[in-house]
Amino acid sequence: MEIIVAKTAGFCFGVKRAIDIAFKLANEKREGIYTLGPIIHNPQVVDELKRRGIIPIEDFQNIKGIKSLIVRTHGIPLRLSEKIEASGCEIIDATCPFVKKAQYYAKLLKEEGYQVIILGEKNHPEVQSLLSYAGDNAVVINANTVLPRLKKKIGVVVQTTQPIEVLKRVISDIVSHGKEIKVYNTICSSTAQRLKETGRIAKKVNVMFVVGGKNSANTTQLALLCKSLGVPTYHIEIASEIVTEWVKGAEYIGITAGASTPDWIIKDVEKRIRNIGGLQVGGNSK
Amino acid sequence: MEIIVAKTAGFCFGVKRAIDIAFKLANEKREGIYTLGPIIHNPQVVDELKRRGIIPIEDFQNIKGIKSLIVRTHGIPLRLSEKIEASGCEIIDATCPFVKKAQYYAKLLKEEGYQVIILGEKNHPEVQSLLSYAGDNAVVINANTVLPRLKKKIGVVVQTTQPIEVLKRVISDIVSHGKEIKVYNTICSSTAQRLKETGRIAKKVNVMFVVGGKNSANTTQLALLCKSLGVPTYHIEIASEIVTEWVKGAEYIGITAGASTPDWIIKDVEKRIRNIGGLQVGGNSK
Repeated sequence: MEIIVAKTAGFCFGVKRAIDIAFKLANEKREGIYTLGPIIHNPQVVDELKRRGIIPIEDFQNIKGIKSLIVRTHGIPLRLSEKIEASGCEIIDATCPFVKKAQYYAKLLKEEGYQVIILGEKNHPEVQSLLSYAGDNAVVINANTVLPRLKKKIGVVVQTTQPIEVLKRVISDIVSHGKEIKVYNTICSSTAQRLKETGRIAKKVNVMFVVGGKNSANTTQLALLCKSLGVPTYHIEIASEIVTEWVKGAEYIGITAGASTPDWIIKDVEKRIRNIGGLQVGGNSK
Repeated sequence: MEIIVAKTAGFCFGVKRAIDIAFKLANEKREGIYTLGPIIHNPQVVDELKRRGIIPIEDFQNIKGIKSLIVRTHGIPLRLSEKIEASGCEIIDATCPFVKKAQYYAKLLKEEGYQVIILGEKNHPEVQSLLSYAGDNAVVINANTVLPRLKKKIGVVVQTTQPIEVLKRVISDIVSHGKEIKVYNTICSSTAQRLKETGRIAKKVNVMFVVGGKNSANTTQLALLCKSLGVPTYHIEIASEIVTEWVKGAEYIGITAGASTPDWIIKDVEKRIRNIGGLQVGGNSK
């Protein structure tokens, strides 16, 4: 049995940075530090931070005694950030620098007189943050949107975790609607590279394990990709979910993980698979 | 027999303007007026202008006694225009205003630091004129080009007579190569509208006549469109080319014409078809 672990599995640059910020604050043992929403889509990491006194809250409004608020990688809407600052609460900005860049481009396009199109999932917090910079006539579209009537000057920014294929598809449609179209391809290459490497591995193996929060969009995307390539695929959050039968008889096993999955969870998964493999060999040799 | 003549058949705005300029000069009976290349892709019009003293030349260099040079709708390369002016020759600029706009955008993109891509046919004079404004690292691509290595800031302008489908197709490819892509959709709507109306008519008729110079790209495009829709199509330059058999038995006949085809040639074609139709009816009633 051979296990191939994707080099691009796990934390991306932005997530690693945000986690580092949060754990550094936890070590300082300051009081009244909260994160707006879970800092990453990984319950294990969120629980560990909770144990160390950094509490996720869903809504800024209803909590008393907030001294500092960590803004997670997705960023937050401009107005909310103004409201938090106005309340006297300190903002610790762990917005991914690539999302920051997309926010900046959304604002720039608005200021340059473009009608801004945000390509992404409307309800995703990153898209909501981008939208707040993009002006009143901004629209959010995804791969399935029938384009509304648009102005002649169209600016496009993209949710950083969108697959490039979606941008390639919708841009054809957009270009025929406008006279001047400015596109900032703000897709983060780490997502693309992770998808690419995952696809390469999935084609070589008998079973694929995709490790990451069940509510993580980028992890789900990885799992969908593997399934689309016809390889039996298991989307798991932790090693203990793995059932012996999944691994049985597999010569090659692939492991990849979403951007919110810490290294130690990936290592746990690898270890568990090796253990099962070892037992099997023992079983067969009896 | 019913004949449907496309409303959009014939001279577009830019061609009409250029022809008006040339005939106005012919009427003034000034001497030493030349056009660089045939003023439009229509030998009948070019011959008529020749008769009135306005001579097309292929090369500026080798002609003595040129006082004024009419630049046709396609425009000319920047350096050539500087050279002509330096020689003391007057330039009468009949460049199509839409081509002028595309030239301006090519220059603007270059100045804004974009690597300029020109979508069009490399050897077409319009594309050669655009290229001269687009900077040293500009590239010309068409629908079949495999994209070379490009810079991260890519600007796109389009030969005004390209079909929108080609832009839609190549933009998908371009967008995945760059980080910032600015597209000026400089496709002239008159070409698109002519294609659209021609397609609508071609679907309704038994025979289609496409009238225009055999070397006119936009006329050839119209003929290709009709053929692709499965209707028997004849690309002709003048009415006398029409053979009785082509029209025989057709209940509905469509006529369209390229941007360089004068009205009187279209009317001639219609008249000839009516005549043939009339004879046929006579023949049948015997």
